Amino acid sequence: MKKILVANRGEIALRIMRSAREMGIATVAVFSEADRTMPFVQYADEAICIGPAPSSQSYLQIDKIIAAAKQSGADAIHPGYGFLSENARFAEAVTTAGITFIGPSAYAIEMMGSKLAAKQAAQKFGVPMVPGTETPLRSLEEAQEVVQKTGFPILIKASAGGGGKGMRVVNAAPELEEQIRLAKSEAMSAFGDDAVFIEKYVGAPRHIEIQILGDQHGNYVYLFERECSIQRRHQKLIEEAPSSCLTPDIRSAMGKCALDVARACNYYGAGTVEFLVDEHLQFYFLEMNTRLQVEHPVTELITGLDLVKEQIRVARGEKLAFSQEDLTINGHAIELRICAEDPASNFLPDTGTLETYVRPQGYGIRVDDGYEAGMDIPIYYDPMIAKLIAWGTDREEARERLLRAIAEYQVKGIQTTLPFGSWALQQPAFINGQFDTNFIGKYFTPQSLESPSPDAARAAALLAVQVWQEEQRKASQQPVNMTPGRWKTRR
Amino acid sequence: MKKILVANRGEIALRIMRSAREMGIATVAVFSEADRTMPFVQYADEAICIGPAPSSQSYLQIDKIIAAAKQSGADAIHPGYGFLSENARFAEAVTTAGITFIGPSAYAIEMMGSKLAAKQAAQKFGVPMVPGTETPLRSLEEAQEVVQKTGFPILIKASAGGGGKGMRVVNAAPELEEQIRLAKSEAMSAFGDDAVFIEKYVGAPRHIEIQILGDQHGNYVYLFERECSIQRRHQKLIEEAPSSCLTPDIRSAMGKCALDVARACNYYGAGTVEFLVDEHLQFYFLEMNTRLQVEHPVTELITGLDLVKEQIRVARGEKLAFSQEDLTINGHAIELRICAEDPASNFLPDTGTLETYVRPQGYGIRVDDGYEAGMDIPIYYDPMIAKLIAWGTDREEARERLLRAIAEYQVKGIQTTLPFGSWALQQPAFINGQFDTNFIGKYFTPQSLESPSPDAARAAALLAVQVWQEEQRKASQQPVNMTPGRWKTRR
Repeated sequence: MKKILVANRGEIALRIMRSAREMGIATVAVFSEADRTMPFVQYADEAICIGPAPSSQSYLQIDKIIAAAKQSGADAIHPGYGFLSENARFAEAVTTAGITFIGPSAYAIEMMGSKLAAKQAAQKFGVPMVPGTETPLRSLEEAQEVVQKTGFPILIKASAGGGGKGMRVVNAAPELEEQIRLAKSEAMSAFGDDAVFIEKYVGAPRHIEIQILGDQHGNYVYLFERECSIQRRHQKLIEEAPSSCLTPDIRSAMGKCALDVARACNYYGAGTVEFLVDEHLQFYFLEMNTRLQVEHPVTELITGLDLVKEQIRVARGEKLAFSQEDLTINGHAIELRICAEDPASNFLPDTGTLETYVRPQGYGIRVDDGYEAGMDIPIYYDPMIAKLIAWGTDREEARERLLRAIAEYQVKGIQTTLPFGSWALQQPAFINGQFDTNFIGKYFTPQSLESPSPDAARAAALLAVQVWQEEQRKASQQPVNMTPGRWKTRR
Repeated sequence: MKKILVANRGEIALRIMRSAREMGIATVAVFSEADRTMPFVQYADEAICIGPAPSSQSYLQIDKIIAAAKQSGADAIHPGYGFLSENARFAEAVTTAGITFIGPSAYAIEMMGSKLAAKQAAQKFGVPMVPGTETPLRSLEEAQEVVQKTGFPILIKASAGGGGKGMRVVNAAPELEEQIRLAKSEAMSAFGDDAVFIEKYVGAPRHIEIQILGDQHGNYVYLFERECSIQRRHQKLIEEAPSSCLTPDIRSAMGKCALDVARACNYYGAGTVEFLVDEHLQFYFLEMNTRLQVEHPVTELITGLDLVKEQIRVARGEKLAFSQEDLTINGHAIELRICAEDPASNFLPDTGTLETYVRPQGYGIRVDDGYEAGMDIPIYYDPMIAKLIAWGTDREEARERLLRAIAEYQVKGIQTTLPFGSWALQQPAFINGQFDTNFIGKYFTPQSLESPSPDAARAAALLAVQVWQEEQRKASQQPVNMTPGRWKTRR
């Protein structure tokens, strides 16, 4: 592999190119007309414009991307995340063109892209599932039968879905018919496929995912979990590794299940198996993402691995150089997604010019981003402009470091989620690690950002840390693995 | 401890303040008139001007610094490195003023500040020394007697010395008298003390130092070694951890000796014990630095510890929260000092304005610096403007990452040591880890920087890596601990 074309933009394009360069592999950027001056275009060894700003005319154009690869002599394509990264037809077309696709097989993408097919495959291995239908719903009667077993509330989900589209909660029998109709109609317009299925609705769930890695020789490892429960409308905002709620036993059980899901589709490369975890730490398979995740850096920081390099090695046909026993969790990492959104105005996307843009620096801080001061944030793409990640020997150090870095980050000209991050990290529920996917709905209001004074906030946070420490001390007979660092800390 | 005054400037002041802030401790900057607009002054919660630019009128003014601490209500002072950091009188004055000195006792500073006193103390514990005199040289006859035992070449060193001043190599008997006279005269004018002593001159030596940490309750750990052999005129330019030449046995023997030296002066806080290591991996005690070292980040990155936080905890009287058994080496880290010097012109200091200043980003890269774009580099202080540090799972990944980051670093307006770093990291002797303190003298000429082409350089480096790998494979019966990472890599 001598030259990789990165079929993506922004921070992830830059991040992939950095790893390629460290491996001595040349890089090709493809870019839309709106992205001409972006750092990832400058960074690449070559860059090819593939069309106008709307993704449908550039970043989603399979033919143009493959033509760019041929034109530049690229022998591999990395799809990043989003855009064509989970499009089986793209993976197939790349391979057919004689180019290495840095990702799983089209077969695995296809199978895991269908939520129902994924569930059926996983079920053969005994992976726990949220009770519900296993095939697309055929009738209201079938739905009523299923609900007899699961009880209310239930969730209707689109088989081809994602990102919360075509997803509806039903609390009682009289709503059932209407909600099914609405979900099918939403699914059809969003995905061109009206297949929906039913799941028991898990209350107060955590969203915890397992990072896996497989080679093309049947070797697999899991790289522990990421806690992604802090979400707003199914969009993750803060992710961390490890989770503050898992015990070593549950971690390893989830890891094994994740590898079973991977084996079910002969998976290779980096992938993520998502689970719902309820209050009793029962976990249920949700879906598998057949690509690098936005939040992969937290896993990198606690394992030391460079996941992009691992993807490239697997794509080159190399065997994994380590086994499960070689892997340990080293410290704790927390990521904040910095989006051009105004948290004080219902997270309304913001656009404009990055008048000031100064990144935080120092020990344990990593910034993955794709902009520089003076640039405009284009309206065409995802509003995420940067990921701010902090590592610490334990969760509390990572949290303090992330707060320090948020305070150092200087962004002027657009509204961002930085103030939200600062607020969230100082919430007692976050500090003591006891939260679920309802965290934002339960605690956050736009007024939350009008904090009385930094001193008062600091005092409240300090109190929460002390209360939590006291509880930890009391519960020390039954350790909850809150501090998986290599040594106990004094804090 | 509620408020720390940092009696230093530039990158180290900022670095200390970041850790203090993460611990919820307020910070006070003291600054000279030339440093008014520096980031460390902006970053502090309070800042106090202590005088004109020359250090003797500001950063070396003990009374002004203590007055600033009293004025601001600071209850602790961190001295950083350089300036007053190894001045026993300063440590004593701080303590006498009722302020906590974040560092060892004045007694330990005083003892280790005198090279002869340090050697005498260490000798009681059987720490190996370079053969030579143990007391200040009294006569030519005594020198001649010593040389009978050690043989030529020898080194004459100033007892109060450092940084190569008052240090002279003598190759043969006829030069002896004259060189002693010159060394004494240099020592007198540099340190106001003409005491000199003699040591056997160790050829092709490595400079390897052990980081230690002790609390005020008699607990000690060593945090492994730093390889600092790449020096120019006794100024370190590239440092790494771990060293590529030590075996686990020698590492632990050096660690134990370093702790003996620390015990010899009832040391507490962070300190560094420097050793010379010869071709046969015999090591000899050189001296102890009773402060944080410039190159401390490489140790932080392989241990996970934050050394400034540890210094603060020890100064607060806390016990170490870990023991030697808890500590392991995680991966590899390499640091390049970025100095405002022109490597193509004999490393002549350069001054001017940082017209462009863009830091590298991404996984495994840390930049500790104290300037922003648009700032002038003042002529009054050390020419180091930044430290660029890369971490990798093994030495080769750290090296590739550092090279990638050097290429990303954009500095315009002044000459820096970045091109030197790029050259050095691609030398076969560096790649295979086989170098000593003569590295620069042996390989570097200003023409080295006129590399034929990046491709040719890359090919040469690749070849060196392959040769080294082949040698490693052959030598795998007797592992040399070149890859102390947690797993073997494929490269």
